[in-house]
Order: sequence, then C-alpha cells, then structure tokens
Amino acid sequence: MTDSWANEAGGERRVTAVTVGADLHLELRGPGLRTGLMDALREAVRTGRLTPGTRLPSSRTLAADLGMARNTVADAYAELVAEGWLTARQGSGTRVARRAEPRTTTALGRPPARPVHRKPAHNLRAGTPDLGSFPRAEWLAASRRALTAAPNDAFDYGDRLGRVELRTVLADYLARTRGVYAHPERVVLCSGFVHGLALMAQVLATRRGSAAGKAAGSAAGSAGGKAGGKGRAAVAVESYGLDFHRDILTAAGLRTPALALDELGTRTEELSSGPGGLRGVDAVLMTPAHQFPTGAALHPDRRAAVVDWARGAGGLILEDDYDGEFRYDRQPVGALQGLDPERVVYLGTASKSLAPGLRLAWMVLPRALVGEVIEAKGEVAAVPSAMDQLTLAEFISCGAYDRHVRSMRLRYRRRRDQLVEALAEHAPGCRVTGISAGLHAVVELPPGTDERTMIEAAAWQGLAIQGLSGFRHPSVAPGRDALVVGYGAPTDSAWAGALDALCRVLP
Amino acid sequence: MTDSWANEAGGERRVTAVTVGADLHLELRGPGLRTGLMDALREAVRTGRLTPGTRLPSSRTLAADLGMARNTVADAYAELVAEGWLTARQGSGTRVARRAEPRTTTALGRPPARPVHRKPAHNLRAGTPDLGSFPRAEWLAASRRALTAAPNDAFDYGDRLGRVELRTVLADYLARTRGVYAHPERVVLCSGFVHGLALMAQVLATRRGSAAGKAAGSAAGSAGGKAGGKGRAAVAVESYGLDFHRDILTAAGLRTPALALDELGTRTEELSSGPGGLRGVDAVLMTPAHQFPTGAALHPDRRAAVVDWARGAGGLILEDDYDGEFRYDRQPVGALQGLDPERVVYLGTASKSLAPGLRLAWMVLPRALVGEVIEAKGEVAAVPSAMDQLTLAEFISCGAYDRHVRSMRLRYRRRRDQLVEALAEHAPGCRVTGISAGLHAVVELPPGTDERTMIEAAAWQGLAIQGLSGFRHPSVAPGRDALVVGYGAPTDSAWAGALDALCRVLP
Repeated sequence: MTDSWANEAGGERRVTAVTVGADLHLELRGPGLRTGLMDALREAVRTGRLTPGTRLPSSRTLAADLGMARNTVADAYAELVAEGWLTARQGSGTRVARRAEPRTTTALGRPPARPVHRKPAHNLRAGTPDLGSFPRAEWLAASRRALTAAPNDAFDYGDRLGRVELRTVLADYLARTRGVYAHPERVVLCSGFVHGLALMAQVLATRRGSAAGKAAGSAAGSAGGKAGGKGRAAVAVESYGLDFHRDILTAAGLRTPALALDELGTRTEELSSGPGGLRGVDAVLMTPAHQFPTGAALHPDRRAAVVDWARGAGGLILEDDYDGEFRYDRQPVGALQGLDPERVVYLGTASKSLAPGLRLAWMVLPRALVGEVIEAKGEVAAVPSAMDQLTLAEFISCGAYDRHVRSMRLRYRRRRDQLVEALAEHAPGCRVTGISAGLHAVVELPPGTDERTMIEAAAWQGLAIQGLSGFRHPSVAPGRDALVVGYGAPTDSAWAGALDALCRVLP
Repeated sequence: MTDSWANEAGGERRVTAVTVGADLHLELRGPGLRTGLMDALREAVRTGRLTPGTRLPSSRTLAADLGMARNTVADAYAELVAEGWLTARQGSGTRVARRAEPRTTTALGRPPARPVHRKPAHNLRAGTPDLGSFPRAEWLAASRRALTAAPNDAFDYGDRLGRVELRTVLADYLARTRGVYAHPERVVLCSGFVHGLALMAQVLATRRGSAAGKAAGSAAGSAGGKAGGKGRAAVAVESYGLDFHRDILTAAGLRTPALALDELGTRTEELSSGPGGLRGVDAVLMTPAHQFPTGAALHPDRRAAVVDWARGAGGLILEDDYDGEFRYDRQPVGALQGLDPERVVYLGTASKSLAPGLRLAWMVLPRALVGEVIEAKGEVAAVPSAMDQLTLAEFISCGAYDRHVRSMRLRYRRRRDQLVEALAEHAPGCRVTGISAGLHAVVELPPGTDERTMIEAAAWQGLAIQGLSGFRHPSVAPGRDALVVGYGAPTDSAWAGALDALCRVLP
C-alpha cells in the first residue's frame, strides 16, 4: 500500500495536491504514505490552514478520498493525537487541537481563515448549496474554451444587458427547462439576485414617483384604488420570506404588505379581492415554484389568479425562481413567466445551482421594461465579470450545466430522503413539510416544543439552524413553531454528522 | 400554448410537464406515447423554446426520465429526423434542425455580433487598454491553480471586503510597486472604479447629512468655513476629468467644484487659500500620478499642499491611481496615499493593467472609514466574482501580473515614441504633452485649428478620437484646442493604421 503512492508519484518526492473529503487541501510528500500524510497534516495545522477545533474527515472517508488503506489514515491520526496535534473524543471525532498556534500567513502567501466568528461545526442553514460539489474541473475547462474563443472586445467595458453569448444561451436554457418565454434581448444579467431585485425596486419606485408627479395636478383623492398608498409604490411579499429582500424593497421607498399563505402556496386571490384584500399594490414578489421557506408549490388556481390580477390591475409579478431546477417527486412546475411574459419578471440565479461566489443572476423582462432596467443599472457595478459570463455561457452550452444540475438533484434528493427517514425514526413527533423541491425542508415541532429553545440546544451541539419565525413578515401573527432545515450546505462528508446532530437536538 | 390550455381546460388530455435529462420542459399529449412525444417536440421547436442547433438528450436518458421504453424515444427521434425537425449526425448527437425557422440565434446558441452602431475602423479614444494583449493563457493557468486550491467557502457569499487572499496579495503589491501603506483589513474590493467612487460618494453624503442634522440645533451661520455649502457635501474635482465620475458624485447629492490645473498638475493650494480659493470642501478627487487627461504629474509642492489641506481641514483625498503602473521616463511617482494613509483613499483598478471586463478594482481606506464603506456596500453587488478575485490573487502572487505590466509598459512606451515621432514628422505644428506616463497623450492643435473640425475630419477617416474640451468641467472656461490621443486601445496589428489615420487628419 505504501509503495503504490510513491510509485504513482514518480518515485521522487513529488508534491501532490489532494482534495480530501471535499475540502481538506493537503500536500502529500515524504518517504511513505503514512509519514507523508502526517507531514501534510502537521504543516496544515502549523500554517493555520487547519484551524484549532476543525473536525477532520473520518479515517474511512479520508482513506477513500486518498486511495489509501483505512488503517494507514487511522494510524496517522492516532500518532498525531499522541503528538498533541489532534484530539480525538467520543462523539466529537478527530479535531485539530486547540493549542496549535496558527501563523497569519502560510508560505504560499495564502492566509488562513480569518479568526473572526468561529464557524459552527454543522451548518443546516437554508440558502447555501453544497460548495464542496462545485464542479471545479468542468468549470475550468469551460473557462479555458470560452476565454480562448472570446473576441477581444469581450474583455472591454460591457453592454449593460450583459454579454450576448450568455444571454442567448440562457434564453434557450430557460425556455427548455423552465418553460420561460425568453429572448436574448429581454435577458438582463445581474450581480446576484439582490442586484436584480434592487433594480426592479428602483424601477417601481421611479414609476410611481413620476406617476404621482403627473397625478398631482389632477384630482387628489383617487377612488379607493391606491388607498393607503400614500403615494409610495407597494410590492406585496409573501408572509414568509427573507428579511433582506424586504429590506431592499423598503430601502427603495416601497411598501411591502404581506400576502397570507397556506399549504397551497400564497393566497394570491387576496390581490384582487374586495374587502380584506390588498389594495394599491403595484407588484408582487413571489417564489411560486417552491415557496421560500415554507416549501409549497403555488396551486394552479392561484397561479391563474395572480396572472389575472396582474392583467386586470396592470400589476407586475416578480418571480423568484431560486431553486426551480431542484424538484424531486414530480415534474417541475414551469415558470409562472410562461403564462404571461409581459406581466412577469423572471429572476433566476446561479447561486443555488452552482455557487453564490459567482455573483451571477439573470432576469427575463417584459419587453416594455428593458429600457427602464438598463437605465436603472447606470454605470455602477452594472454587469458581472466578463470571464464568468463567458464561462457560464460555455458551461451551459456544452451540457455541463445540465449534468451538474442532474447530479446535484440526485445528491440533494438523497439527503432529503435521509432527512425524512432519520426524523421519522428519531423525532417521530415532528412533521416534515415542503420536501418536494429545493434544498431545505420545514420541520414542524410537536406541541409544547419551543422553536427558540431548539435553536439554542442546536447551538450547543455546534449546529447552526434557523427557526421558521425568523422568516416571518413583521405584520404577520406568529405561526407554528418549526425549524427550517437546509440540507444543501454541508459537504458530502459533513452531511451525516450534521444530520446526527439534528437528530440529537430534536425532541 | 393556447391549445394546451384549451385541452387542459377541456379535460380531454392530461397536460404533463416533463423534465428531461436535466431539463427539457415538454407537454406530452396525443393518442400514444410516441406521437405525444413527437407532438411535444414539434411544438417546442415551432414555438422557439427549442432553438435550432439545440442538442437533445440521448434517447436512453430521455426514455429513463420519461419512464418510456428507449425504443419509443428512438423511434420518435428517427421520425422527426425524417420529417426534417431534427438532425442526427455521428458525434454530434440529435439536434434541432437548422431550417426550423431560427430566432436571432445561430446554431450553437452563439449569436452573431449585434447589429448595433458600427465600430470605427481606428480607435484612439482614451481609457481602454490593448485588449488583444490580455494574457489569456497566463490568466487561465492562474485560474486553474487558484480554483483548484481554493477552500470550498471561497464559492460562498463572500465577505463584503472581498476575499482575503486577494486583499493580502494586493496589500503587498501596492506597497511594493506604488508605495501604498496597505493592510489587508483596509483593502476593499469593488466591481470597478466607479463602484468604489460611488461608495465613497455615499459615505461622504451620509456624513454631511448626519453632521448637518446635528448642527441644525446649534448656531446657524457657520463662520465662513462651509460657506456656499448649502448643507450639501462637496468633492472638489480637477477642472479636466471624466464627466461620468462627476455624475456619480452629483447623483449622490454632492457638489463638485473644480480646481484649476496647469503644467504642474492640479492647483491644490487653492484648497487652503483665502480669497479665491475653494471653501467648504469635504474631499478632493484627483489623479496625482498622471492627471487625466492633461497628463501632468502632480508637483511635489502640490502633493504636500493637498495633504496639508486634508490634515488641517479634516478633508479626504480620493486618489484615482488609474494608470500608475505605466510610467516611462523616470521612476514612477509613489502614491500620494503613502504620505498620509489616514487622509487618503487610494483607488486602483485592473481595468487598465488587465481588462475592464474583469470589473475588479480596489480601495485602500483610512482605518476610520472601513466600517462606513462596508455599511455603504450593503447587500447589493457588494463584491466582484470570487473566481476573478482568487485568480487575480494567484496571478499577482505568481509574478504573472508584474510580467504582464512590464511587457505592456514596453509596448505602450513604444507606441508613445512612435506617436511622438510621427507627429514631429507629419504634424510639426502640433505639440504633444502629457507623455511621461499612461496610455494617452494630449496633442495641442496649432492656432487657427479647430478641435471640433479635427474630430469630424477624423470621423471621415474612420478614426474615433476625443477632443480635450469634452473632459472640461462645466464651470471652467474653454482652454486651448487639443485632441486626447489614446494609444492603448488598438491591438498591435491595428496600431500602425490608426497612427497613419491620425497623421492624415492633423494639420
């Protein structure tokens, strides 16, 4: 076993970079496998790349990833524990010992993780995909092809819409996979979903502003239609969602009244209804394919209702299709946008399907809005990196994106199944909902169990998790106690540990 | 589309949306599986959801996803090929046929160049580097190393400051090459220079806003110091510069009074002087290393004067070091920031040294400003692409950036020399100034020659060039007639032709 590696490495002490598990970066060298691994681990600790408290992969996982015998890894771990580099405790796995003092930078000029807030051992927060599965090799290959083929002007200050290569490929992709009616001239590239949302907020605020200006000269009291509007435009939001999405809307001067929701999704009929319904709403921000975070898919009647409202009232639908690609138990629901491309702004992102670090998202706009959005973009931070735009265009058109999404769908689906199974066994009092799609589920806690207590108990286990109430619109009455379990974030090797921790916490 | 809804409404055939492979969105109906699939594919092609050239999943994959027999799918494909809807070629798979009425796209989803405004044959506009020299191979190699070595969390939503790898490397680089006093915790990464400038504008506007709020309760008439301020913060700008930089400041609610300039650079002594000087200025935006566009390097006395002003008046200097790396005839002037890191905000960019398409720039901030700038960044478009950040970090630390800058410096210097020689020969009446640095020069026209006429004459030669007056601050009286000749933009092969065209135009 020891020889095989040395031979593979060419007999010499070739420095070999190895990704371990999904995220341990070791440089193996030395006379034998065991000593090579030990040296690499010592150096990683010494230079601070492995910080105190970091949990190492199990010897079995690491051995599998390195192509070593499990005993070799177990022996290396045991020696390093004996030397004081690592600690091994029952139930806590093998970790980097606390005493090891990290330097501030390594020989390679790469600094260690900043010594800010310590990371939780287990992360089940919603909203992050498995970053360990980012398809580095395929991305690099696409990048190589794209940059080699790119015309010189691809590296210039770009079109505010974004590179036409990517807009064209995305138009095809979204039509094919999400039933979006897309044309490259309606696709606008943004630096992340929030950039797109901020642009739409600006457009809506400006419109109302100029409309109010025009109306100022005419009769003052508008008959009911915009009552309560106080001149400010309003974007209705779902009663559960992300607070910083609401913040972006309010920062633009918009009101954000809430629409109630239930198991069939958001009650869009409230947009049109008479007494008790919402009035004076200019637009609605929704997650129809998989309500975030409660998990419902919008019922067909309600899909129809919101489109009817938009047509009748001249309203706009902002469709946040953040995880539309990940649906498990039945056919994906096509995007709402397909029902009325002139009334729906479709917003998609590479943050869930690939990685948030790309800062790449897209909007498909009603034709009439393209000019206003381009105007709103202005000169500042108008487009994402040309390199990433070109690379993603190639990544999609060569089929790698489809393959990646398919592989991630299988992976997330497996995790979801494991989550449901584990909870059925260990926490039979909990009910799991919102599981037909996406990267998270809602775990309803049994009566008498308090959400906040659970989250604190989880923190003691090193488990970061969110409560449903953290997503509640401020105007909405408290609902049932529940946890939002994101099963996207852990790497494959960390997932089992995170699930175990969750089961220990739940009643 | 209408048909399908009619069918659905009539209840005659179930409409079934199907995910194929990762992602073909089909509506299956019809009397049998095979005909249903064929109808769905035909409709998808006809409506443009599947565009010409799109590759379809293999029959095996599609069959698995649809739960059909593989032969059924293969038969359907074969019939559609026979009908001319699809094509099947060895090694290319089954694709949508070209003849199917194309939208604006070409076969591979790569669009043709947009038929927008025609490009000039020769481009001597200032502000763009030679994009043909972008070091694609070295950039890709750095990208490969960086992405392979990156920890998983590099792909996550990032720190608002930007990736620590790049901030660390930049701090070293700027200290070494520009004499900037930099520490990674003071380096903030932005999506281009304008992003950084917009952040600073926001910070300055907010400060004055809160200061004005506080002062409102106290004595009203401030004794001269902020006279003319009308409560709005002011950023003094140079009397020649880019209008959209001024626009960013005014859009934030700032005033932008102009500072005069001469051959020794901007008259910074006007900031402190009594009568006739500028008053109530909170900050000054400058290009000290190479005034844009007039080309002077700020005289040492004036460097001292602006720093003295900043210290005495509590002002801030925004140092736009856009091309500090390109200086030819003597040692580069170190950044002003080194004189007082607590009073100068250093702004640098990869747009001139590498390419604007990267959308990557950086600020080095006074310690006291870091928090405010982070706050101003907010959630939207806060950081550039993680991929580019990591790649640039590696590109700098492996020495490729230094090599690239050195090579480009030689190249630009050669062009500058050729420009000066050519003009001496063909347009002896013109005087060339501002040539000791950068990617552009100012060509003063002989008396009796009109700037505007020259630019029009150039346009007839297919030569795009700018006049100096286009950079003049609106409050400044017209100066001499001159052209700003950017010698960065042409590729090496285009340069000689552009220079010839210029010589034909000049008197």
